[in-house]
Amino acid sequence: MRENKYDNPVFFAKYAQMDRSRLGLKGAGEWQTLEPMLPDFAGRDVLDLGCGYGWHCAYAAEHGARSVLGLDISRKMLAVAREQHAAPVIEYRQAAMEEADFADGSFDVVLSSLAFHYVVDFGALVRKTARWLRPGGDFVFSCEHPVFTAEGSQDWYRDENGNILHFPVDNYYIEGERQAVFLGERVTKYHRTLTSYVGALLSNGFALTGLAEPQPPQEMVDTIPDMADELRRPMMLILAAKKQ
Amino acid sequence: MRENKYDNPVFFAKYAQMDRSRLGLKGAGEWQTLEPMLPDFAGRDVLDLGCGYGWHCAYAAEHGARSVLGLDISRKMLAVAREQHAAPVIEYRQAAMEEADFADGSFDVVLSSLAFHYVVDFGALVRKTARWLRPGGDFVFSCEHPVFTAEGSQDWYRDENGNILHFPVDNYYIEGERQAVFLGERVTKYHRTLTSYVGALLSNGFALTGLAEPQPPQEMVDTIPDMADELRRPMMLILAAKKQ
Repeated sequence: MRENKYDNPVFFAKYAQMDRSRLGLKGAGEWQTLEPMLPDFAGRDVLDLGCGYGWHCAYAAEHGARSVLGLDISRKMLAVAREQHAAPVIEYRQAAMEEADFADGSFDVVLSSLAFHYVVDFGALVRKTARWLRPGGDFVFSCEHPVFTAEGSQDWYRDENGNILHFPVDNYYIEGERQAVFLGERVTKYHRTLTSYVGALLSNGFALTGLAEPQPPQEMVDTIPDMADELRRPMMLILAAKKQ
Repeated sequence: MRENKYDNPVFFAKYAQMDRSRLGLKGAGEWQTLEPMLPDFAGRDVLDLGCGYGWHCAYAAEHGARSVLGLDISRKMLAVAREQHAAPVIEYRQAAMEEADFADGSFDVVLSSLAFHYVVDFGALVRKTARWLRPGGDFVFSCEHPVFTAEGSQDWYRDENGNILHFPVDNYYIEGERQAVFLGERVTKYHRTLTSYVGALLSNGFALTGLAEPQPPQEMVDTIPDMADELRRPMMLILAAKKQ
């Protein structure tokens, strides 16, 4: 069974308090970087892998998608999605993305927001995604940055007074499971190198069309405590690719 | 005037002692990753930016290049290149790559090995390279990895007994000058993000064909003291791209 942390009531309640949960896309530090990297949605069939509350599904629907299928392993997340982000073209379905399968050429766009670092076998997922997409289809996803996942703790290295010294990188080339703490709970994540992320795309018939390490926008740096520290290390990676 | 550290006699002498200087390509930890990413050289016109001792120029010549132009700012490095890696098709020329210019479509291949982290304005260099290359031309280079250049010291973070704890990342999004220590000498290098490296390629008409963070080969890990630590952090980045 895949880990389904988001159906843990304590974790789910904590996640609901995050800005990205309460405010949606505008509360997500990476949104200003991600939005211009998204493809045209008009008239296209869209799949969102790990759709969570459905913010990106709703965005695709609002931008003219013909159909949007949001998959998530968490029943609780999907309940929120169905309540807050319903639309005639959107279907939400409970499924682990690793176990999902579709006919070849089922979609024009595959999206995923901050879910792939929970996936053990990224290469297998990219192979399936390449098959599910029609030629010329777009694949855009964000994930945790390899710098952020390598060492495992996902925490700053601090001096004895608690001041941040730097962010630690270790075991970079040793891919696989990491036990991180997120919202005070232990969560299993998977580290892989940048080489693995980009290589899986290039070796499965995708052309890379964009790569970004999003920085929080200046207004967040100015108004949210500790946000300036996010200029000291990359936390997320966004990749955009086109099936050739 | 561009910094010309390699004409400093002390630095030059220390550099000459490195495995990559004495043994050439086989003494360079990244060679086993770089070699398969190199393009076909047969019958093609090749430019090497920062050619140093000329190891890569010689390799291109041995693999059938029609012409090879090696540029380097250092007179001393070029003297070694001319002595050790001469060939009828190779010309070595003293020039700072930032100040070099050529007619549009002068080359089929542009190479660079571990030189671009000395360049202030990488975007300007990629714009020129795109112009110098013929359509379908190949651009392959290695540089220091953004993880390795971000914090600046390029040194491990150690405990009070000198044991390595991890590698520090800091000021990742703050691009520009860093004062590093290399071979015991202060050297000015320039940090830039992965986003900047890849983005400069994509925005100048290149298709990314390869990305690798080379690991030292197992036989080096097994036989060279401390080489196993190089599995803990990425030190180099190799990018391969094709002009469309």
